[in-house]
Amino acid sequence: MNINNRITDAYKNIRSDIYKTPLIYSPELSERTNAKIFLKMENQQKTGSFKIRGVLNKIHNLGEVNQDNILVAASTGNHAAAFCYAAEKFGFKGILFLPESISKTKLNAIKHSDVEKILYGKNCVTTEKEAALFAQKFNRYLIHPYNDIDIIAGQGTTAIEIEEQLPEVEKIFVPVGGGGLIAGISGWFSENEKVSVIGCQPVNASEMADSVKEGNIVPPKTTDTIADATAGGIEEDSLTFDFCRKYVSDFTLITEEEIKKAIAFMVVHHHTLVEPGAALSVAAALKNSDLTNKTVVLVITGKKINPDLLTNIMSSYDSDY
Amino acid sequence: MNINNRITDAYKNIRSDIYKTPLIYSPELSERTNAKIFLKMENQQKTGSFKIRGVLNKIHNLGEVNQDNILVAASTGNHAAAFCYAAEKFGFKGILFLPESISKTKLNAIKHSDVEKILYGKNCVTTEKEAALFAQKFNRYLIHPYNDIDIIAGQGTTAIEIEEQLPEVEKIFVPVGGGGLIAGISGWFSENEKVSVIGCQPVNASEMADSVKEGNIVPPKTTDTIADATAGGIEEDSLTFDFCRKYVSDFTLITEEEIKKAIAFMVVHHHTLVEPGAALSVAAALKNSDLTNKTVVLVITGKKINPDLLTNIMSSYDSDY
Repeated sequence: MNINNRITDAYKNIRSDIYKTPLIYSPELSERTNAKIFLKMENQQKTGSFKIRGVLNKIHNLGEVNQDNILVAASTGNHAAAFCYAAEKFGFKGILFLPESISKTKLNAIKHSDVEKILYGKNCVTTEKEAALFAQKFNRYLIHPYNDIDIIAGQGTTAIEIEEQLPEVEKIFVPVGGGGLIAGISGWFSENEKVSVIGCQPVNASEMADSVKEGNIVPPKTTDTIADATAGGIEEDSLTFDFCRKYVSDFTLITEEEIKKAIAFMVVHHHTLVEPGAALSVAAALKNSDLTNKTVVLVITGKKINPDLLTNIMSSYDSDY
Repeated sequence: MNINNRITDAYKNIRSDIYKTPLIYSPELSERTNAKIFLKMENQQKTGSFKIRGVLNKIHNLGEVNQDNILVAASTGNHAAAFCYAAEKFGFKGILFLPESISKTKLNAIKHSDVEKILYGKNCVTTEKEAALFAQKFNRYLIHPYNDIDIIAGQGTTAIEIEEQLPEVEKIFVPVGGGGLIAGISGWFSENEKVSVIGCQPVNASEMADSVKEGNIVPPKTTDTIADATAGGIEEDSLTFDFCRKYVSDFTLITEEEIKKAIAFMVVHHHTLVEPGAALSVAAALKNSDLTNKTVVLVITGKKINPDLLTNIMSSYDSDY
């Protein structure tokens, strides 16, 4: 089955359980870029990020019989929150492997869930490997955060909504970590020559961009980024790498300072919290000099920003920003 | 026509032009209050507040023929933002009278609109009076922010959604300024004995609560509040006063400190910006000791918080809050 059919099916599977998030016009970003800029507000999605789309599609495709065997390894917290939501909704239990680096904010967001949590591993790749070993040993089913065609198809349903909400879209900027979201979105638009999809990564966690450039998957970087949702590297055999090689037009790399400015911009001009990973697309638009007269969508992927980081960022910018 | 029929009609008029905003469960508030607490996210409504509901209904009922004659006096900024949106959508022009005290943040939110803006008056009542004089003199039609049955019916459509999203609701906390929103919501539930509607006002701007207590409309207070959306007093002949007297079960008054804590709470636990007026319902739930086992909705009315105020508030609270 081709990816467009998978995404169409995924939307049928999950439509009634997710929000069709708003696509809102940004007068301020549009003025600054001489473009028409719209924000796809997946930070207002159930559980606070697009990750619920992939998880719900995966669980739907697994079928009821396997739900008692589910295990999940979460990249960075949003996949975990989505899993906890699904577990409660469908009434099954699970075990959640989380990297030790998971932010307190994201851990806090799942503390009310009954799902068992195990903190293990310094980065996501290590956590995922351990979870996979555990799953194999104890015959559990692992729901991977991105390296799974059902997850990719689920995240790709975001593209169906964008196309419906703004048929004239020309460029879509998408934050990239493991690449599940951009694989789905670029896959959906792969046969539409009018639309180009651009990946946005931190300079400090540019594994996907580097891998595409080098033609093979590079190991996780050791540099830190505040954009935890996009950090941690990509698994060796990742499907998402193939999608990015084939369908992503370009990558833009964003500095830590640019991420912070984009977070402040969203507070000041849109009164909306975005987590650092979600600010990547906003930062990409703010620094991109080549958007004149284009119709552009920035995917806003999540909202779970650490309050101390927010305070720190806002203290450094005056409100005229 | 009774209020329920008016609200039902209003929903037909505006449904396709507004968002049906999410009603989200708050595990943290529920745990702290031993209740089931849900948030009606009108801060995610188009233009960032519920005010668009009333304005769109009013304009619909005016009909096309009068649109060139429209004039609006805005209470505090959200009504103004709603009007600017409607003016662009329907392609008419207008003049906006705004109080001199309008926050820079709210003024900023309408700066891209073509609507003519006039800053006049130290409080909303003065601004509204001047706008009314202007309207009379130059034969313009004034869209009042709350003292109009079509505006009340529009705001009341929020109640239709709450009832549909949570049929078992027992208590609804609603921030109150001029009282358009609570008039509509309490009007809708006036024949439903299972639901009580509680008004939330700042101690420093408690005109509606005081008026209901005294049996007649009291003059605007001179004390300052950060909850600008609820400040400015109520006009002498306000319809909303009658609704509040008849249908509002109780009022809760909130201190400035409690408002700030509620804003921080929403950042830390819901990663969502609320303006001070919108934090009143959250503050009311946090201080109310009488919610055990109740199913409660807090209406979150808007998001346009001044960034400096946000920074100031967040600097005073640690993230364990």
